[in-house]
Formats: sequence, C-alpha cells, structure tokens
Amino acid sequence: MNFPDWLTYIQQRTETALHAVLPAASLAPVKLHGAMRYAVLGGGKRVRALLVHGTGGFLTHARPEQLDRAACAVELIHAYSLIHDDLPCMDDDKLRRGKPTVHVEYDEATALLAGDALQTLAFQTLTEYQVCTTAAGQIEIIQLLSQAAGSHGMVGGQAIDIASAGCELTREELESMHVRKTGALIRAAVLIGARAGEGVNDDRRRRLDIYAKRIGLLYQVVDDILDMASDTATLGKTAGKDASCGKPTYVSLLGLADARRFANDLLVEAHDALAPLGERTSRLHELADFIAHRAS
Amino acid sequence: MNFPDWLTYIQQRTETALHAVLPAASLAPVKLHGAMRYAVLGGGKRVRALLVHGTGGFLTHARPEQLDRAACAVELIHAYSLIHDDLPCMDDDKLRRGKPTVHVEYDEATALLAGDALQTLAFQTLTEYQVCTTAAGQIEIIQLLSQAAGSHGMVGGQAIDIASAGCELTREELESMHVRKTGALIRAAVLIGARAGEGVNDDRRRRLDIYAKRIGLLYQVVDDILDMASDTATLGKTAGKDASCGKPTYVSLLGLADARRFANDLLVEAHDALAPLGERTSRLHELADFIAHRAS
Repeated sequence: MNFPDWLTYIQQRTETALHAVLPAASLAPVKLHGAMRYAVLGGGKRVRALLVHGTGGFLTHARPEQLDRAACAVELIHAYSLIHDDLPCMDDDKLRRGKPTVHVEYDEATALLAGDALQTLAFQTLTEYQVCTTAAGQIEIIQLLSQAAGSHGMVGGQAIDIASAGCELTREELESMHVRKTGALIRAAVLIGARAGEGVNDDRRRRLDIYAKRIGLLYQVVDDILDMASDTATLGKTAGKDASCGKPTYVSLLGLADARRFANDLLVEAHDALAPLGERTSRLHELADFIAHRAS
Repeated sequence: MNFPDWLTYIQQRTETALHAVLPAASLAPVKLHGAMRYAVLGGGKRVRALLVHGTGGFLTHARPEQLDRAACAVELIHAYSLIHDDLPCMDDDKLRRGKPTVHVEYDEATALLAGDALQTLAFQTLTEYQVCTTAAGQIEIIQLLSQAAGSHGMVGGQAIDIASAGCELTREELESMHVRKTGALIRAAVLIGARAGEGVNDDRRRRLDIYAKRIGLLYQVVDDILDMASDTATLGKTAGKDASCGKPTYVSLLGLADARRFANDLLVEAHDALAPLGERTSRLHELADFIAHRAS
C-alpha cells in the first residue's frame, strides 16, 4: 500500500472505531452524546491515530484492532482539548475543522461537559479493550496517556499559552510551552503505539522517543507557519489568530524563513533517529514528512 | 476508635495523601497548580474517601496506604466536577466550602483547566500506585471510576441537571438524574473500596452495591432538603440555590415531609443490605447515618 492509501485506510479505520467507542446519539442524555459525536467524528487528519498505527503496526505485533482502541483513546483526548480550547474563556474560536465549534453549535455548558466526558471516555476505552498483551503493560499505556494529558503535559501547555498572550517569550520558554501543549500528546501516540502488543525493546523505545519529541515540536512549528502563511478556508480554523491575539509563535520569534529552517532541522533529526531501525519504520518516516509538508 | 475519631482520622489521612498526589504549587505552571490545590485541599467532608476506607479497610485486606490512593482518585474526580459545575456557564456559583469558587479566586480559563487536569490526575494516580493486588484488578478499579464519571454517570447527570432547570420532572426522571449526578461516584467509592486489596466475593459485592446505590440517592435527597432547610453559612455554599434556579428537587416534587420520609426509607434499606455482612461493616452503617443526618 502506498502512503496516501495507507493514510486514508487508517483514517477510515479510526473513524469507524471512534463511531463504535462513542455513545450512540440516541442514548440519554442525547444532547450531550450528540455534542460528543459532533466534536469527534467526521474531521481531522487523525495524526495521532496514524502515529499509533505507524509505530505499533510494524514494531510490536499488535493487531490492528488493538491499535484502533489505543488510537481512539489518544484522539478522544485531543478532541476534548480542542472543545475546551475553543471556549469563550479560552481562545474563543468559532470555527474548527471547517465547522462551527461545539459551544457555537450547541452551547457553552454542553461543550464543557462534552469535553469532560470525552476525557473520561478516553481512559474508559483503555480499560475495556486489551491493547497490550499484559495487564501491567495496559496500565503503562493508561499512564502514558495521563502523563501526556495532565498539568505537566497538554493542559499545562494550554495554561502557559493562555498566560503568555501579549508576552514576549524566550525561545526556551516557547519551546517549553509547545513541548507540553502539542508535543506531549503526539509523543504519547508514538510511545503508546510502541507499548501496544508485545511492546518494543528499550533501545528501540529510546529512538522512537527521540523521533516522537522532534515531530511533536515540528507539528507546532508548522502550525505557527500555517497560522501566518495560510488562509482560513484551507486551515478550517481562523488563520492569523495567534498573531491577532498577540500570542508568541515561532514565526513571531524567529521570522518566517528561520521558522522554516528550524522545521527542516527537526524533520532531519526525526529521520536520523529512526535510521537504525530499518524498513519497519518507513510509515513513521512518511508521517514525519506528512507533518512537515501538510497544508492544514 | 469511635466513629467521630475515625472520621477525623480518615479525613486527615486523605488530606495528607491529596497533598502528596497534587503537583507542588511551586512547579510550573504555578497558577494552574495553585488552582488545583486550592480546589482540592482544606475542605469537604471527604464522604467518598470515607466510603473507600470504610469498605476496603474492613473487607479486603487492603493496606490503608493503598486505600489512600484510591480515595484520592475518587476525591479528585469529585473536586474537578465541583469546579466545572460552579462555572458561569453552568451553575454560576460564587461560594464553595465557605470559600470563593475557583473561577472567582482565579479566573475562568484557569478554573476550566484546573478541573481538566484534576480529572487526568485521578486516572494517573491509579496507574502509579498499586491499589489492588493484581494488575487486572487495578484496571477494573480504573474502569469503575471512568464509568461513574462519564456521560452515563456523573457528567451525564450534570447535563440532565442543566437541561432540567425550569422543567417539571417526574419522580423517575428526578431519580435517574440524581443516580447519575451524585449517586454514580458515591457508588463507585464503595465498589472501588470493595475491589481494593484482595477484593470481596460476589455475594458481598452485590450487597455492598445495594448499600452504595441507596446511600448515593440518600446523599442527594438530603442535599435537596438542606438546600431548602439550611442557610448559606452552615452549608458553605449558597442555600436555596436550586429553588431560585427553578431546579426540580425532591423537596419541590414531594414536599419537605415526604422528602424526609423518603430519606429515612433509603437509610433503612441501606442498613438492611449490610445486615448479613456482620460487624465488619459497622463503619458503613455509621457512614450511612452520617450521610443522612449531616448538617452541610
């Protein structure tokens, strides 16, 4: 299967798996469940799901059905974070994935609760399906996800992001924010993939971790470049939003040309980290290129 | 140890354990971590922690340190739900446990994120400390907590609660709301206690589950009575709030006298469920009385 076909194949598998994991829209409370499905289904590149499959599918002997569930858990955390991030008290965004945000389509209370319930569902999913061959490994997977999502990871990054609007950050501070806000969950997707099935050995895990950290930061640098250089229709969310809010970005800090150079350096380092692992990581090489060269 | 001393002893253990589980206030991001600690520490009756210890401590051979961690996880979920429930888009409450609510003391974005991070921390805590003698049992505990917290449990109950303001509910609808909103997590506290250590056998579990369901509903019926019959200073939160928002309660549905009778029926049924389990459940008997006769 060539890369574009594999991409579509995994995206469709993930959509189907999410459909099954989410509560039916007909189940009470129907508004809450409708909002949860609205937020999760029918959109997104599913980068985190692709990383779970791209790692776990070629290195761990995990079955695709196992990886589907792990991928769902990571995507549910991502979806919840977008709902809450878009709320009026946070970024106050009206558009996401080309659709009205959840609090615009429903209401604020429903958006808040839908995000809360999606986070819970992510962890619940990992208790109901055996992703790893051992129960102890399964707990490690839940731990990886919780560490990435919590106050030292994603939510901590969002808190720093909110606090930094209108502030000058040093390059170290900007990197520290992005490593948490976007990087932590992307890294977790790779590490969870690597822990699925029978897992990988320590040496492979170390290399995958370097790869994961580089593409996690790369994702955000490219996000900053796109926010500046693309348009709302292409992005499916409001372009130029960070600049208009006075949020520090890699583009505001380094300028467009140097931000692009930095992205390229990270891409090269990601490829280098995988090199000794051979052909089994070809999907991960392709995914790094995909993250670097995406248009939205 | 008599019951009041045991109550104080467990409350103090729980406070100490929560202190250790929460990120230090000096760790970045300090505002987020400060808000998490503000919301969780120094208040509350710790009913859910008492139920974990009251069940697990006498029936499962679990060590008190194991129960502390399980109790923390349940209390963290409870604390997160209070923060989000108090937000302007939800109940818009200014006072909780006699202190300004988190969004009043900090700001809305921080309150939102602190709640999010506390939910994550609850699950993370259950991956970092062995509460049960087996990893499979530990996963069951995480599952019990997630089922109780999610859209079929606590968050689902909050969604129904928000939607029902100004509506007439039937008694069945009111019970269904309360079973989810308050009952699910109280029930989970008992079942998690029963799954800790070596766990209990199926017959004991069934009886404890009946007890747990009765006191879960009892808790909310008494809450409704106190909201009507007590004052703000005693409650530590705004009295008469439900009535002024047009929210259906057991008092608005049945009247004060019949609500009290219903509470007493539930208390009797809770005691009856435990009767065959003998002296090991004496703390649970006392806790049922405590829930029924509390003043706040």
